[in-house]
Amino acid sequence: MRHVVIVGGGFAGMNAAKGLGDAPDIRVTLVDRNNHHLFQPLLYQVAMAGLSPADIAAPIRSMLSRYPNIQVLQGDVTGLDFAAKKLTTDFGELTYDYLILACGARHSYFGHEEWEEHAPGLKSLEQATEIRRRVLLAYEEAERSPNAEDRKRFLTFVVVGGGPTGVELAGAIGEMSRFTLAKDFRNIDPTQARVILLEAGPRILPMFSEPLAKRAVRDLETLGVQVWVNSAVTNIDREGVDVKSERIRTATVLWAAGVEASRLGKASGLPTDRVGRVVVEPDLSVQGFPYVFVAGDQSAFTHQTGKPLPGTAPVAMQQGRYLAKLIRSEATGGGREPFQFTDKGQMATIGRSRAIVEVGRWKLAGFKAWVMWLVVHIYYLTGFRSRLLVVLQWAWSYLWFRRGARLIVPKTWRFYEPTPKDSP
Amino acid sequence: MRHVVIVGGGFAGMNAAKGLGDAPDIRVTLVDRNNHHLFQPLLYQVAMAGLSPADIAAPIRSMLSRYPNIQVLQGDVTGLDFAAKKLTTDFGELTYDYLILACGARHSYFGHEEWEEHAPGLKSLEQATEIRRRVLLAYEEAERSPNAEDRKRFLTFVVVGGGPTGVELAGAIGEMSRFTLAKDFRNIDPTQARVILLEAGPRILPMFSEPLAKRAVRDLETLGVQVWVNSAVTNIDREGVDVKSERIRTATVLWAAGVEASRLGKASGLPTDRVGRVVVEPDLSVQGFPYVFVAGDQSAFTHQTGKPLPGTAPVAMQQGRYLAKLIRSEATGGGREPFQFTDKGQMATIGRSRAIVEVGRWKLAGFKAWVMWLVVHIYYLTGFRSRLLVVLQWAWSYLWFRRGARLIVPKTWRFYEPTPKDSP
Repeated sequence: MRHVVIVGGGFAGMNAAKGLGDAPDIRVTLVDRNNHHLFQPLLYQVAMAGLSPADIAAPIRSMLSRYPNIQVLQGDVTGLDFAAKKLTTDFGELTYDYLILACGARHSYFGHEEWEEHAPGLKSLEQATEIRRRVLLAYEEAERSPNAEDRKRFLTFVVVGGGPTGVELAGAIGEMSRFTLAKDFRNIDPTQARVILLEAGPRILPMFSEPLAKRAVRDLETLGVQVWVNSAVTNIDREGVDVKSERIRTATVLWAAGVEASRLGKASGLPTDRVGRVVVEPDLSVQGFPYVFVAGDQSAFTHQTGKPLPGTAPVAMQQGRYLAKLIRSEATGGGREPFQFTDKGQMATIGRSRAIVEVGRWKLAGFKAWVMWLVVHIYYLTGFRSRLLVVLQWAWSYLWFRRGARLIVPKTWRFYEPTPKDSP
Repeated sequence: MRHVVIVGGGFAGMNAAKGLGDAPDIRVTLVDRNNHHLFQPLLYQVAMAGLSPADIAAPIRSMLSRYPNIQVLQGDVTGLDFAAKKLTTDFGELTYDYLILACGARHSYFGHEEWEEHAPGLKSLEQATEIRRRVLLAYEEAERSPNAEDRKRFLTFVVVGGGPTGVELAGAIGEMSRFTLAKDFRNIDPTQARVILLEAGPRILPMFSEPLAKRAVRDLETLGVQVWVNSAVTNIDREGVDVKSERIRTATVLWAAGVEASRLGKASGLPTDRVGRVVVEPDLSVQGFPYVFVAGDQSAFTHQTGKPLPGTAPVAMQQGRYLAKLIRSEATGGGREPFQFTDKGQMATIGRSRAIVEVGRWKLAGFKAWVMWLVVHIYYLTGFRSRLLVVLQWAWSYLWFRRGARLIVPKTWRFYEPTPKDSP
């Protein structure tokens, strides 16, 4: 009985596990710090109050419960010993025959960790909820503020990073202030909110072709988003953001600028690249350890194009499935084929009814692209609560410009009642 | 233009505000610490992962946005000055012509505030999420624990308080372990979980007639819940609960035992009863201050039966509507009629398909009662996200014994990735 240990229940880990479900003579243990798998491509919808956490997350345990050969354990990995083929966790030791590391990535603040508290990133449900809290609270603060300068500051939103996530966030804030919130306030006019998207490079969405990126800029501007390129952030604090010599006074900064792979790779002495991704062989194994694989955002696979594959869901899913097939094949005496990524194109959405799609040389923008984006995302929501319900809910919000999940849940758990003593 | 200030966006406050919507020559300011109104009767469903927070909560602001004469401000009230007809908040001062206090109630630990951290109550979304986190984490801990004693402790759940909330929580945990989670674990058998409902008095559900309460006990036992009556809790700590000389080893204690009204009443020098409720006149005003009213769980109205009316949604809703009518009537020169509560009966649910309903001398139990409970609760969910969607979602979960919202979201916001350094 070969024992496969998978660390991480993201797209790579889940696809590897599912691929090994019911495999003869193989047992699988999946370890994750969280109890849920997350459909990250829609995480910005949770941050922007369009969907609830439960719409895009499902318990890993129940997603895999049909496979008796898979065990799921919630916990933290605290150490790896490749020579002894074992790992330590906060609940004890595990030994393995095959190890798959798929721990994902986190945001990188380029050495400015102090920016994090003022500019949260978007990688987990907690962060999405925190971003939602900050954005909605800013409108509340503006509504009750007697000072025009403060109101302006609260109604200024800055998104750092012009990749797909930054574009989605900025578009969603623009749309929310123009449509969803327009009639809800008495002292402020939410449609006057400023949304600024900052990009350090010469243009946004560098992974798309130039005409499509330009189209995205135009679509963002229609939603009231100002796109500033060549605008590297030099400082972020409580009161605002500095872009070179210019100061933007704002209470809400969101970070979508750079990623760094899970630190587990580097901390275990594996060879990593500049952003902490583990450099892998053509079969995703680590040099010198043929039974240790790294997949998804945590791995740097350069054998196909010379550059590392991007940290996207399709790459992670294909790598997970590939590893399951490889391990099954070795169990029956087969050999290893190198991993081959099939690029099915890329898409990004801007607000309620616009998107850009690029598949090879084929390009699409506007409403048709958005419908395609929608169909693809709904298709991949398989296994979640109920695809049909999410679709209905979503259709509802989109058609009526409502955001049902517009709840501010306090960061800390406390009694809700106002008492004079407790107040500041 | 008369200015009505309402503190609290619960059932009483919201019904008062809606009743004053579009009233000529009246403007309304509603202040609440939270941005959302909560449908509290279904809060236990959020705690038990059957529904998402957004299914039972909606932004106060958007629920009232159709009325141009109503302003909503999120904030804390820090002081009341009845003589000067003004109140101070954390965002400034407000003056009023009429003041409606509807700040609700919180749990009371009978002087043992130190129990709170080990035994959270269920009054807010944060608390519901926290309870969900604790219950689901207990199963995770049991699954990964190598020690049989520990596993038993993690699989023991204690609910303190045999009122409707306690019964609903205990029933839901029983059902969850018997059905929803049954196949998801490998090292433990969730159906072996012990659920103990502790009641200090001689029987549970004292507000119901004895035969119905007995029926509820039987229904709970079918779901594997042990009902202990005459069992006052003498101590709660990290490791368990003491009931007189008996020790129950458990990792999860939920508190549904007693309530105490918002401290704002007492702190402002108003006359209060033993549990902090403000004693009100027949028109819900406070003695000596005819323009200050207290409604809902925060008020003690004794003029109808000699005892205070119970802290339920129907009482709060009727009081809110009554106050709106009273203020509208005075604005056109009319007088005040005393408040009169119309009792439409009471209901409690036990698990997925059982309930008890009592309307005067008419009693109903079992599946028919549950259908009635469902119809009433769905009817009153008006104004929330989309009644239809909630119903569909709920039907889905109930029919398939799934709990879609089974997510554990960490209490504190942090990066999700496992790093050896961060771990304890």
